[in-house]
Amino acid sequence: MSFKEMDIENAYRILAPRPTIIVTTINKNGEINAAPFSFTMPVSMDPPLISFASVPSHHTYKNIMETEEFVVNIPGANILEQLWITGEKFPPGVNEIEKANLTQTDSLKVTPPKIKECVAAIECKVHWIKKAGDHDIIVGEVLHVGIKDNILKEGLLDVEKVKPVLHLGGVNFVIGDHLKKVGE
Amino acid sequence: MSFKEMDIENAYRILAPRPTIIVTTINKNGEINAAPFSFTMPVSMDPPLISFASVPSHHTYKNIMETEEFVVNIPGANILEQLWITGEKFPPGVNEIEKANLTQTDSLKVTPPKIKECVAAIECKVHWIKKAGDHDIIVGEVLHVGIKDNILKEGLLDVEKVKPVLHLGGVNFVIGDHLKKVGE
Repeated sequence: MSFKEMDIENAYRILAPRPTIIVTTINKNGEINAAPFSFTMPVSMDPPLISFASVPSHHTYKNIMETEEFVVNIPGANILEQLWITGEKFPPGVNEIEKANLTQTDSLKVTPPKIKECVAAIECKVHWIKKAGDHDIIVGEVLHVGIKDNILKEGLLDVEKVKPVLHLGGVNFVIGDHLKKVGE
Repeated sequence: MSFKEMDIENAYRILAPRPTIIVTTINKNGEINAAPFSFTMPVSMDPPLISFASVPSHHTYKNIMETEEFVVNIPGANILEQLWITGEKFPPGVNEIEKANLTQTDSLKVTPPKIKECVAAIECKVHWIKKAGDHDIIVGEVLHVGIKDNILKEGLLDVEKVKPVLHLGGVNFVIGDHLKKVGE
């Protein structure tokens, strides 16, 4: 079967489904923000670095420019509806964690809080930020990783238990719970 | 439930499962390479940019440094075993597409070929490359997107049909075929 052409602007729709994260940040006035992102990937093991892409107009981006810290919270399928609420447009200074009826809890190495209902929280400080088209790529150095009990299986995410939230586009998510090992 | 500490070097294991791509490249001598990656994310809509992370010692990276072009091929679950073969260590100059019994077909805007058995192919030229720890982030500008018939549903990847390959770690993949819409 041959290929047919698709609009290049929609390339992101086929690089999917993508792990969805909730990024928590704080500005210099101590106001907390939370928002979901799915343009995200690990980058390096040594030093441990992870990244995500944000538009510069986003409160998350502005807070990171001010305080250079953020927490990448990993949600399970059980909080998909709340995750969606953190992505709604609120005025600056509104705490989306509260709006979504989620619970914030202190981080250990950075000032932005983590979200208690998430299965894991990766505390980061900025490694570098670089413009790439209409987004900026934010690379964070991992300072601490907190995980809930029993979310790992043989050292990897237990996807059948956690049911990670994968973003397809718009309101569409995939709850990936099927596991296949190569060669079996 | 409270969080417990996890080694920071393993942060990448919980930012998962991740879309898996096969990147095809060519060096200045015309030798073709193919290899799987799962540290990948879209970056920008206008201009359309996508990215992935590679160690600098990788043939893919070296070829891109020479010719500044690459193709991001999107596999479906039906070629998971062949995908795995393209990730094996072969000497420089070996064409992993042939080794995996896959078929190469000409791209339209770049020199590296695309893989006929994949559901989509995103042809890119380098936008920028920047070191980030033990990997480099490679950002590519999308020049052409080719897709197979019927892989989209309402403009998004039809995951129930395509069954995209998601990487969990090592030999472990998730074949995500469950779709959930927010609010339903």
